[in-house]
Amino acid sequence: MRIRIRNVEQVNQHLRNAYLCSTQPSVAPKTVLAPQPRPVIVDNGESSRYWVDPTNHMRLPKSLAAALYQTQNTQSKRSIGNMEKPSFQPKKVLILSKLTRYEFEKKVHKGCDDDQLATILKKRGSDYNRLLSKHKIHHSYLNTLQRELENAGIESRLVRRFGYTQEAVDWADAVFSAGGDGTFLMASSKVRTKHKPVIGINTDPQGSEGYMCLMRKLPEENLAGALKKLFHGNFEWLYRQRIRITVTGDDGISDAIELHDQQLNRDPSTARWTDNPRSPAREIDVEECMSLSPPVKKRMISESDKVVVPIEKETVELPVLALNEVFVGESLSSRVSYYEIGLNEEQMLKQKSSGITICTGTGSTSWHFNINKLTEQCVQDLMKIVAEHCNLPQIPHADKNAVSEICTKFNQQLIFDPDRRQLAFSVRDPIFNATFPPTDPRGFADKIRIKSRGYDAHLVIDGGISYRFNDGSEAVMEVRDEDTLRTVVFR
Amino acid sequence: MRIRIRNVEQVNQHLRNAYLCSTQPSVAPKTVLAPQPRPVIVDNGESSRYWVDPTNHMRLPKSLAAALYQTQNTQSKRSIGNMEKPSFQPKKVLILSKLTRYEFEKKVHKGCDDDQLATILKKRGSDYNRLLSKHKIHHSYLNTLQRELENAGIESRLVRRFGYTQEAVDWADAVFSAGGDGTFLMASSKVRTKHKPVIGINTDPQGSEGYMCLMRKLPEENLAGALKKLFHGNFEWLYRQRIRITVTGDDGISDAIELHDQQLNRDPSTARWTDNPRSPAREIDVEECMSLSPPVKKRMISESDKVVVPIEKETVELPVLALNEVFVGESLSSRVSYYEIGLNEEQMLKQKSSGITICTGTGSTSWHFNINKLTEQCVQDLMKIVAEHCNLPQIPHADKNAVSEICTKFNQQLIFDPDRRQLAFSVRDPIFNATFPPTDPRGFADKIRIKSRGYDAHLVIDGGISYRFNDGSEAVMEVRDEDTLRTVVFR
Repeated sequence: MRIRIRNVEQVNQHLRNAYLCSTQPSVAPKTVLAPQPRPVIVDNGESSRYWVDPTNHMRLPKSLAAALYQTQNTQSKRSIGNMEKPSFQPKKVLILSKLTRYEFEKKVHKGCDDDQLATILKKRGSDYNRLLSKHKIHHSYLNTLQRELENAGIESRLVRRFGYTQEAVDWADAVFSAGGDGTFLMASSKVRTKHKPVIGINTDPQGSEGYMCLMRKLPEENLAGALKKLFHGNFEWLYRQRIRITVTGDDGISDAIELHDQQLNRDPSTARWTDNPRSPAREIDVEECMSLSPPVKKRMISESDKVVVPIEKETVELPVLALNEVFVGESLSSRVSYYEIGLNEEQMLKQKSSGITICTGTGSTSWHFNINKLTEQCVQDLMKIVAEHCNLPQIPHADKNAVSEICTKFNQQLIFDPDRRQLAFSVRDPIFNATFPPTDPRGFADKIRIKSRGYDAHLVIDGGISYRFNDGSEAVMEVRDEDTLRTVVFR
Repeated sequence: MRIRIRNVEQVNQHLRNAYLCSTQPSVAPKTVLAPQPRPVIVDNGESSRYWVDPTNHMRLPKSLAAALYQTQNTQSKRSIGNMEKPSFQPKKVLILSKLTRYEFEKKVHKGCDDDQLATILKKRGSDYNRLLSKHKIHHSYLNTLQRELENAGIESRLVRRFGYTQEAVDWADAVFSAGGDGTFLMASSKVRTKHKPVIGINTDPQGSEGYMCLMRKLPEENLAGALKKLFHGNFEWLYRQRIRITVTGDDGISDAIELHDQQLNRDPSTARWTDNPRSPAREIDVEECMSLSPPVKKRMISESDKVVVPIEKETVELPVLALNEVFVGESLSSRVSYYEIGLNEEQMLKQKSSGITICTGTGSTSWHFNINKLTEQCVQDLMKIVAEHCNLPQIPHADKNAVSEICTKFNQQLIFDPDRRQLAFSVRDPIFNATFPPTDPRGFADKIRIKSRGYDAHLVIDGGISYRFNDGSEAVMEVRDEDTLRTVVFR
């Protein structure tokens, strides 16, 4: 059948439609046994007081990193996006650059020259030379990126976090993040359409695993070549599902709080700096808090209750999608969390725990992974008990390699395809008793509803943005096609 | 050999000395397979907004509760204390009574009569009748206790939490707590000598497991008889080890904060009430905060560093011993914790996790247990992987009973003797990578040192008392004989 092609987008749409009729649903990642090229694990010996380690929460032991790298790429072949003929030809590109640690320290210690700064840092156990070196590496990547965009005739604007506004994002056809995975998270947080690609450039391959970045740890000398590939269409689209959160509260929704300085009266300029939303402290800025769009308020009749929601309850869609996970639980780490949870359309169940995470495939390598993974110690103990209980001395609990392989396999099963249109929930330290009967603390669902019974609870998006979520509030979390994040990957 | 006996204490001392020469060190609890009488698990259907559930964090599934009940009693036979001839003949007894939920609500809603209160509670999903009923039960126990003490010629004083001062404790020869395990924790927190017994009376057998209380869930009609047994010496001493914490900080130690209302400007009288330190909110009171003795400050030369500690570092022994556990980690539940840990005299290791708990045998059924326990889902998954990996189809992963038994055995191994003179540490969600190499996240030590590398971290005792513990602070935790808590148990 001949069709008139007016533009690439039309071709994409056509191919997409054709594929949709025949697509297989996403499948769980297979266990991969063949040895794979291992990503280089670089020793980040940074011993500074502020562990600037944006993506440590996503790092895996070598054996798992390799498995993940293979798994995610293999699965993505099944993604719908792979049926589109890739093309990356934006006219206007926005670059979100992180602030380097060196830049931050210079800002904090205004008026100090570099020698003085070096002394101050040394007293704290930080290494000035390392900071400067990383700063230079970051800017080297950044300069190459800007130069290649210019050579390709693409207009670009460079912003840092405070200039990363919705307006700036709307202006652009595509967004690049220059930093680590944390910067990528920040960049994607303001992109709500699946048609605007977000591409991560890992400018700190030593410090960041770059799971969400192009080629993960692309050496700087290869960046120009990689960008050329991109402009020539030699790549594939990778679609990362995200979580949409709709909250109903007694008194509307509080404003978002950036998880940084929880201690009052602390001078913002001295707030601890890091690139990672899920690390201690981000530099706070009043304008930044305000730059988060206020939640979209809607009044709704609650279908599930079959009653009219009293007029004072407001339902809002949070303006930020979660790319990794949503955490719901008490703000205070040593306080027990109470809530009710309902999967899909099932009845709500009461739970008591240390909180719950709801994650995407992207997030399944992150906090979710660290909560659920088993250690070799644990696997060994269990194998020994099974051997004794079942009278099976052949079970190799004393064989370190066997234990390690079994441990790896178990942990690998925790990770799933970023493209999978389901949410994985994970209950931390679940407490079971007569009032709170045992349930599976891990599982999948298409939609998850949570009713807070909390005292000082919060709902935290990607470890960085927090909304108050106390007794009386309810949240619905789901994955929607239109919320998908479009990124790129090389095969 | 004849010795002149002047008093019972001398006999005790003599027996103690004799035993000390021959004592065996505490051993880990054995796995108990024989069926044991199961404690009654009562359904606490309380659906109130404020889950008044002091000890839910200590509840276990039936199979484990039974095992625990047997295990702890069996082990205690080996305790040194069992060689003393028991005698309980105090002249003066202090009774610490909890505030019942009913009393609290009446206080909060001053000026409302009971009908109005009933309406208010109903709107919140709470049951007025149940509250009143529990209130009466509590006072029935309390009256019996006071009456029996009087009949035995023992002077007693009754206080609630705000009257529970060091002065009051010092006045008494023994302390009774009337409430649940939470009240027992509170009572024992001010008893620093191992010669002053603390006895828990569980006045809420429906709501509290009473692990630390006499007979755990003693029916009210049996209380008088139990007390008579006590006065006649028909019991055994049970010694519970506790954790002493010594902290060295850059600027001394902050005042203790009771973990209750973290939100500023909240009227204390409306603060959420509970008996459990590790539940949301306790009713706060300025006088109460101040009634915690300020930490004992001492200047010390740090032996481990072999240098003179700079004059601005202060070393203080915290005035509260931990009976369950110490938690060290970031205050904010979604923030990653950084710290260094050293077991005994070993080198300090850097760690990154969601925090660490250090517990006693008493605490091993509590938070520590819930962090480390495996669920049947997890055990089944792992058994399946072992079966496939080792080609052992006989492994009964599909057999629910086998899985349940194996799961129980694994979890049971987490629990140890309250009398054991060691600390168990447990790292939550440990993050392993090149900077933070894998270590066993669970283990024992005689002494544990932690150096904070935290941003807004705290050190939390028994889930109720929190001390700021940021970068620059160090804590040493150990078990000392003189800190033992003396309690009673019936065989």
